[in-house]
Amino acid sequence: MICNDTEFADCRGRLRAIHDTLDLLGGKWKVTLMAALGYGPRRFTDLQRGIRGIGPKMLTRELQELEINGLVQRTGQDGKVVYAITPYGETLEPLIHEMALWGRGHRQRIMQGN
Amino acid sequence: MICNDTEFADCRGRLRAIHDTLDLLGGKWKVTLMAALGYGPRRFTDLQRGIRGIGPKMLTRELQELEINGLVQRTGQDGKVVYAITPYGETLEPLIHEMALWGRGHRQRIMQGN
Repeated sequence: MICNDTEFADCRGRLRAIHDTLDLLGGKWKVTLMAALGYGPRRFTDLQRGIRGIGPKMLTRELQELEINGLVQRTGQDGKVVYAITPYGETLEPLIHEMALWGRGHRQRIMQGN
Repeated sequence: MICNDTEFADCRGRLRAIHDTLDLLGGKWKVTLMAALGYGPRRFTDLQRGIRGIGPKMLTRELQELEINGLVQRTGQDGKVVYAITPYGETLEPLIHEMALWGRGHRQRIMQGN
């Protein structure tokens, strides 16, 4: 068994919670999009140009899914459509922070040849 | 531009760090595997049975990649091969913790109909 008896409830609950988060944020782009929008509202073209490898169709789909889940909203700014992080989307900041922190540490580790 | 002038370095650095983390932990299974191994060494069959939807070939590949990146190690326990988290793998705990925390909150939000 993956979750042994002594910690069964905690282990099962944790794996399910992680599964829920990955359901919403899985894939290559969503966390990067949320991190980018953490710096302020962005236009579709800015997001597409700024995130290497993402095509317009994929970007459209990812933004739609983030909107459906209440993490991103489409608004107008100076007569243009922009995408902005919602208050609920901002609750991801601690997770995004830990991801960035770990990634920086990992890059240093690699550069030090560990 | 996705990272405007005022925060350019910080924004670019953060997006790259997240990209690095996703490179290692991306996909449906790796974070769940690391979370499960956080509860102690597990045999291949326990991991496969315990993580819904993962087949033996995929599990083999994911474990190999986690091993290559120093996050998991194969060891022997009572004459059987088990997979265990490495000290470096344990540095993921804060990230895994935030993922679980957010997932729990999200599930509650959904159940409360928000």
